[in-house]
Amino acid sequence: MTHTLILLRHGNSEWNQKNLFTGWVDVGLTDQGRAEATRAGEMIAAFEKQPDVQYTSLLKRAIHTANIALQVADLDWLPVKRSWRLNERHYGALQGKDKAQTLDEFGEEKFMTWRRSFDVPPPVLGDDAEYSQVHDKRYEGIDGEIPRTESLELVIDRMLPYWESDITKDLAASKTVLVTAHGNSLRALVKHLDGISDDAIASLNIPTGIPLVYELDDNFMPIKPAYYLDPEAAAAGAAAVASQGKK
Amino acid sequence: MTHTLILLRHGNSEWNQKNLFTGWVDVGLTDQGRAEATRAGEMIAAFEKQPDVQYTSLLKRAIHTANIALQVADLDWLPVKRSWRLNERHYGALQGKDKAQTLDEFGEEKFMTWRRSFDVPPPVLGDDAEYSQVHDKRYEGIDGEIPRTESLELVIDRMLPYWESDITKDLAASKTVLVTAHGNSLRALVKHLDGISDDAIASLNIPTGIPLVYELDDNFMPIKPAYYLDPEAAAAGAAAVASQGKK
Repeated sequence: MTHTLILLRHGNSEWNQKNLFTGWVDVGLTDQGRAEATRAGEMIAAFEKQPDVQYTSLLKRAIHTANIALQVADLDWLPVKRSWRLNERHYGALQGKDKAQTLDEFGEEKFMTWRRSFDVPPPVLGDDAEYSQVHDKRYEGIDGEIPRTESLELVIDRMLPYWESDITKDLAASKTVLVTAHGNSLRALVKHLDGISDDAIASLNIPTGIPLVYELDDNFMPIKPAYYLDPEAAAAGAAAVASQGKK
Repeated sequence: MTHTLILLRHGNSEWNQKNLFTGWVDVGLTDQGRAEATRAGEMIAAFEKQPDVQYTSLLKRAIHTANIALQVADLDWLPVKRSWRLNERHYGALQGKDKAQTLDEFGEEKFMTWRRSFDVPPPVLGDDAEYSQVHDKRYEGIDGEIPRTESLELVIDRMLPYWESDITKDLAASKTVLVTAHGNSLRALVKHLDGISDDAIASLNIPTGIPLVYELDDNFMPIKPAYYLDPEAAAAGAAAVASQGKK
């Protein structure tokens, strides 16, 4: 049988707008982000398969995006599961730093390596730093696993076990699953599903606020290419993300 | 050890405002209801024990109240569990009817019996009625158990098993629990916790939007009287609820 997975990247956040590296810092949506979430909810409401269960990260920009979209789709009641394993990539010492300033300070090579290399994490964020999360109550349960920086490879390492332990279980139970998360946690999942190479994933950009639908077989692999519920807006959105931090 | 339970009744809804019996009909909050939820969030934020997990019914007026309050308290990330067992009492054939009109049509005795008697449910709501929920997808899993009308006694019968199977398990795991629900599902729980008689529960009114705190022992019974986080507002709110439907 066919299983349906809907991925949704959160809309514009306060720090997207300020052009700061965000990672695990818990910033809210902007008005634009809320409008994107509303539009996503309209697309979900119009889609032939309605979600039966929803997943989010532990970060409010994803949670609010899901709350707004599901309110618009009249699906507030969906069962919810949240996990740190769906969080954005931890940006290490770059968290809270201006992207353009980081580009100036470290040069394009380092900047692009930290942003897009598969396995090179940014410098570690100290536990006493302003934007560290090691003392944040929501991560108490994860103990030794809380990251101080992550590459995309490390995101995959902590995200895929959750995909296998939880999300695929709901898919196996014939549930349509909505996952509202972040650029890099969703890239990690898309890399797995579409078998994208470590090199090629660098140029994959997922636009914000546009539901991406996968139809999966019983091994939870795609039976056909994934598609956005608004393909034109998705193409424009991906181009905008690719140019972030460029001047 | 002491376990902390916080109960929150949803704020003013669209049908509270219109003075209609609501029950399981899924109506949203009014601006006043959202303002009550905001105030509840401020009280939760200022309270010494922060919730670790939150429960809601499957009805959006409770879900939105919780979403707003937790956003204000910066606790969006809390794990969430939702259950139909926390829903408002099913008001049977009264769902969608005007309260004042029902009072005129049936007289004060029947009206007050349906509203406040312990074990007399209103007439059954037909499965093809406009405000029936038997075909609502969110209740698919509960099959034979979906109510067509309920007395407070029947609410207790379906709520207490969930209290025992789920909520007390989180309390036992040293978690502070927030339950955002409805006038009658919360009265059912308060009746159990405070050992209120079948007769005396008729005059107990829980105000909207004001967190009610229980400190419980290891048998999950109160070690001291419960208290509202804003006692003055609570007293005024309870009086307002008691006069609902009166002209």
